[in-house]
Amino acid sequence: MTTIAIIGAGLIGRSWAYVFARAGLTVQVWDQNPEVIARLPQDLAEMIADVGGDAAIAGRIHGKATMAEALKGAGFVQESGPEIADIKKALYIEIDRLAEPDAVLASSSSALMPSVFTADLPGRARCLVAHPVNPPHVVPIVELCPADYTDPKAMDFAEALFRQVGQVPARLTREIDGFILNRLQAVLLAESLRLVAEGVVSVQGLDDTIRHGLGRRWAFMGPLETITLNAPGGVPDYMRRYGPVMARLTDDAARGEAFTESVAQTIAAAFPNLDVAARQRWRDRELAALDTHLRDRSERNEING
Amino acid sequence: MTTIAIIGAGLIGRSWAYVFARAGLTVQVWDQNPEVIARLPQDLAEMIADVGGDAAIAGRIHGKATMAEALKGAGFVQESGPEIADIKKALYIEIDRLAEPDAVLASSSSALMPSVFTADLPGRARCLVAHPVNPPHVVPIVELCPADYTDPKAMDFAEALFRQVGQVPARLTREIDGFILNRLQAVLLAESLRLVAEGVVSVQGLDDTIRHGLGRRWAFMGPLETITLNAPGGVPDYMRRYGPVMARLTDDAARGEAFTESVAQTIAAAFPNLDVAARQRWRDRELAALDTHLRDRSERNEING
Repeated sequence: MTTIAIIGAGLIGRSWAYVFARAGLTVQVWDQNPEVIARLPQDLAEMIADVGGDAAIAGRIHGKATMAEALKGAGFVQESGPEIADIKKALYIEIDRLAEPDAVLASSSSALMPSVFTADLPGRARCLVAHPVNPPHVVPIVELCPADYTDPKAMDFAEALFRQVGQVPARLTREIDGFILNRLQAVLLAESLRLVAEGVVSVQGLDDTIRHGLGRRWAFMGPLETITLNAPGGVPDYMRRYGPVMARLTDDAARGEAFTESVAQTIAAAFPNLDVAARQRWRDRELAALDTHLRDRSERNEING
Repeated sequence: MTTIAIIGAGLIGRSWAYVFARAGLTVQVWDQNPEVIARLPQDLAEMIADVGGDAAIAGRIHGKATMAEALKGAGFVQESGPEIADIKKALYIEIDRLAEPDAVLASSSSALMPSVFTADLPGRARCLVAHPVNPPHVVPIVELCPADYTDPKAMDFAEALFRQVGQVPARLTREIDGFILNRLQAVLLAESLRLVAEGVVSVQGLDDTIRHGLGRRWAFMGPLETITLNAPGGVPDYMRRYGPVMARLTDDAARGEAFTESVAQTIAAAFPNLDVAARQRWRDRELAALDTHLRDRSERNEING
């Protein structure tokens, strides 16, 4: 069984540690801040309790005093350090130097493409991005993005490993800014921000439209299966019937200009007295409950054919 | 209690009939095709059984032989006829003439704005669009869109009625093509189609990214609450940290040119041997189960404060 090294033990790093340990793997964790490692058992216990997990899982997660110790014997490295190119570059020089020769190196980076911080490494062919939605222990997707020099075998290894531990890898064929998830989030947000800024709908009305509408379908089908079921003849029929209308709706859609300080204030005003940390814990409990619901339904459908 | 008239008893009309009857209201249904009315009890029974509803609810739904009979005594009319401007115009002349003087007239139209088919009516001030996601008995959102001449009291009435029967109305302040939901679906689809057409990700990878990723959050929060929780200082903090990156991702986003026959074929190939009707029934059962899950969680959160 592959031993996992987690480099950077903030919220995302700890969540990754739990994902791999939950699946029975041994996890070795390092953070450049020794206090983070000192607090690791307590932070893990809290996170696991919050989602009703088994506290014993934390027994497979081992804080280490040095990066070299965390990397020793590890066949897969999940790095979750700061999203700053120079910091990531410096970190990767060390990781590539100290990791086992056959280890695959994955980064949780959301904003930086792999070539930004791995292009000059001797071991660059084993580097890729494995981008989660925060926190991965309750949201299964992980986007796997290669640089043009990434060895397909490193991608295969990462894909198989993430499936083994119960995540859902989505494999990109090449680097693209924002990968898939944030590109889709960005276009939907741009139009959402514009509609709210122009007063066409309230902040709550906008959220309700997705939350009590399209989000319901997208939570178990995705947008392409959704349209496949929206016309009797499947998606070619959909395209003939609705393609021209949908195309028209995008032609004056908002873009970057919609991301303003002013609309941020409008949205903030719709969430008065918000305790972000408390609400994040609520969100993660809801994500855990939804994940359980969707896994149960999926199993039931498999059993019933 | 308001009596409801349903004009047009296809899939959406029948689903609406069930929504209102489920809440205890009397529903009178007419369709221009007498066979649809003849088959109504059987079609309703099947629909209700599919979502595990109480068969007795159909007892409050009454098929009528003429439009005049369906409208008699009804305080609210939900029209779900064909989405063709000339047909809707002709239909509304009759509805406006025959409906009770104080009835509010709502249309399920998704592609036509209310002014397209109600502008010339004597009773145009009581007309609005109440656009559902299909089928409304398992998806609560309903977009309420006024024309510039719609009486705000008609909007108030519709909003209160939909809340009373357990739907979630999202109220627009003015007419806009596509309303909110389809504008957001259109921009996300355009970029999705492009990414698949260019081979950056597979059809399944694209759907997985939403289904096992963002769709999980959007199913219970919506996109604006989602970003509010993505930075410690709330949405103004989010905008400072990530606004520039997200803006950049939209600047070369796909638009109408992405809706091609060719990408439709690519998507269709990813769903071989698809039985659309059977899969739609599966979808509606999953939507019903998800609705139950989300309502249970919502009640639990209210009880626990």
